[in-house]
Amino acid sequence: MSVTAPTGFRAAGVHAGLKASGTRDLALVVNDGPHAVAAGVFTTNRVVAAPVVWSRVVLGDGVARAVVLNSGGANACTGPEGFVDTHTTAEHVGQVLDVSAGDVAVCSTGLIGERLDMPALLAGVDAAAAALSTDGGADAARAIMTTDTVPKEVVVHGGAPGRTWTVGGMAKGAGMLAPGLATMLCVLTTDAVVTEEDARAALREATRTTLERVDSDGCMSTNDTVLLLASGASGVPADRAALTEALTAACAGLARALVADAEGASHEIAVTVRGASDADAAVAVARAVTRSNLFKAAVFGNDPNWGRVLAAVGTVPPDVAPYDADRLDVTINGVQVCRAGGVGEDRSLVDLAAAREVRVVVDLHAGTAAATVWTNDLTHDYVHENSAYSS
Amino acid sequence: MSVTAPTGFRAAGVHAGLKASGTRDLALVVNDGPHAVAAGVFTTNRVVAAPVVWSRVVLGDGVARAVVLNSGGANACTGPEGFVDTHTTAEHVGQVLDVSAGDVAVCSTGLIGERLDMPALLAGVDAAAAALSTDGGADAARAIMTTDTVPKEVVVHGGAPGRTWTVGGMAKGAGMLAPGLATMLCVLTTDAVVTEEDARAALREATRTTLERVDSDGCMSTNDTVLLLASGASGVPADRAALTEALTAACAGLARALVADAEGASHEIAVTVRGASDADAAVAVARAVTRSNLFKAAVFGNDPNWGRVLAAVGTVPPDVAPYDADRLDVTINGVQVCRAGGVGEDRSLVDLAAAREVRVVVDLHAGTAAATVWTNDLTHDYVHENSAYSS
Repeated sequence: MSVTAPTGFRAAGVHAGLKASGTRDLALVVNDGPHAVAAGVFTTNRVVAAPVVWSRVVLGDGVARAVVLNSGGANACTGPEGFVDTHTTAEHVGQVLDVSAGDVAVCSTGLIGERLDMPALLAGVDAAAAALSTDGGADAARAIMTTDTVPKEVVVHGGAPGRTWTVGGMAKGAGMLAPGLATMLCVLTTDAVVTEEDARAALREATRTTLERVDSDGCMSTNDTVLLLASGASGVPADRAALTEALTAACAGLARALVADAEGASHEIAVTVRGASDADAAVAVARAVTRSNLFKAAVFGNDPNWGRVLAAVGTVPPDVAPYDADRLDVTINGVQVCRAGGVGEDRSLVDLAAAREVRVVVDLHAGTAAATVWTNDLTHDYVHENSAYSS
Repeated sequence: MSVTAPTGFRAAGVHAGLKASGTRDLALVVNDGPHAVAAGVFTTNRVVAAPVVWSRVVLGDGVARAVVLNSGGANACTGPEGFVDTHTTAEHVGQVLDVSAGDVAVCSTGLIGERLDMPALLAGVDAAAAALSTDGGADAARAIMTTDTVPKEVVVHGGAPGRTWTVGGMAKGAGMLAPGLATMLCVLTTDAVVTEEDARAALREATRTTLERVDSDGCMSTNDTVLLLASGASGVPADRAALTEALTAACAGLARALVADAEGASHEIAVTVRGASDADAAVAVARAVTRSNLFKAAVFGNDPNWGRVLAAVGTVPPDVAPYDADRLDVTINGVQVCRAGGVGEDRSLVDLAAAREVRVVVDLHAGTAAATVWTNDLTHDYVHENSAYSS
């Protein structure tokens, strides 16, 4: 169901002909109201795709009535012509749906540096508009896939018995998952009655602790976008705390699904740093570990190489994360392989081959804060997919 | 010849039994004077191996008479016992050579988190001392190899006709080449007459623009060490500028050799950033590109994916490197594939399969500074070597 799980939304996913594979490549999500509250979070990359430039403006007033998303082309680094293409797309969606183009967000994903096939895309918009339905969420989730092997959808319920509201969401992304999100497109919908301010604050907080803590390959995308559309169709108000909680659960579910389907991965790795002076310090240390190609290649080889964990921990500057290197502990899948910066239990006690999920815990013994960042192992298939990828 | 090319030095490389492969694994380099001037540059990792802790102290007074280096074990994360092992090694070398242990630097490389086989190592020191010779440089260069496929040696001449001096050097390192050097061990020798201050300043400057601009896999080692020993045996003084020039040439040669032999690489990639506001900005942008797994995997697939270059450039904060994203140019092997942030010449004009060396030039159009950082492509073999690596 994903984005059509809450009331007040229709969606569709069609094949417009942008992807050579012949699969669905254009999605449309429409908020039928009564409200059109919206919020967005975008990549912090300085090189941004035309649809990001456009959608930032659309979301600026906290109102959006539709989102059109295409795979088969990122429309990034395409110059003024690329921006015209995005603008034309929004205008066309606006005409077809009879809403202002200024209330239509646009998302694109695929190869950078290529113009989109606009006739195919605009015809696809017509087809999608004709196919819009209140159970179109699943098709929409399929249409935004690139190298994803499965669609990512989530549904979370909020409120109290008799007065419930729902959050639905879909996401795509299987590589390029990094610091400020990932080529990761994500659309969340809710039928709760919420204010613009609460929508913005709740989305910001929900992504900060979930999607922003997924770091598959350390590469930040030009196209990352997370959008929230709120229809108010349930008639049930949600306050900021309740909305934040529901959005966080939805984003956490999608983030976990993204990691599980990361390009070529054979393990998902949760790096938890605890005993940190504050949460930022914990995140910084965890991120350093999740970006160590050497550690990630070791995990692929089922080698619990904790020395590579410590080498990565040691790269974080003291002003970012204070700790004493002689007090560091590292536990891998429950086995404390490193104690007080030195050799702990026998590393051969760690069995990484038994499961996809690997849990690394680093204790800094420098405070009480903790954070977890997710990543994947570095595999032959990652290299293969990303050396052959051009779709 | 390497470290024994200058007069006043003897060296040896022997098999002590630390490496399972049965190849040479212990090197000794001795400065017979008349001077014993020395300088060192070490990893900036906060998690450092015992030999780094020791050698920093040894080099503190600008004097060293010998360096003992072993492969087959990094002696990192080995706690107080590991430090005792390093100390014992230095004491033993001091006894055998009849010099103060406080003038004996120690370097180790290999797996982190394992104690060294000290009886084997100390017997190896005896064997190396017995084998010391003025043409032992080649054996020493072989003894410090780990996953290196070839030894790295360099000889540079300085001075004027009739008044010459020489710099010799050896290095090892094939992975973990990163920010503050790499598990990279490097010993440079010279027979020039130099002051402690000049030795320190010249080594610092020479490494800054060479070995510190090699970034094979973004992973910083716990053991990186670059040492300079000056015997003064030529009787010819070298001033700071001349010494810096010769050391820079030597380090550049070794850095190039390290990149050419990086683990599993099929391409060497030179990322030059020009038009930068200052050199630090140029280095920061170049380093961001050299750390993009996506771009490096694309190069492995002979795909000139300039969008991934721009996506990496965009991750550098504006206060570090000011530029306008709409003015960025990217040239790959002479073909300007990106012009003014958009599509330039046809990417199919770039032939990456023709040669190992790939030259990427990013023009920021924000100033006149430039810098080059070297890296490698990300290959199946990199993943394989680093998932299987435990020697």
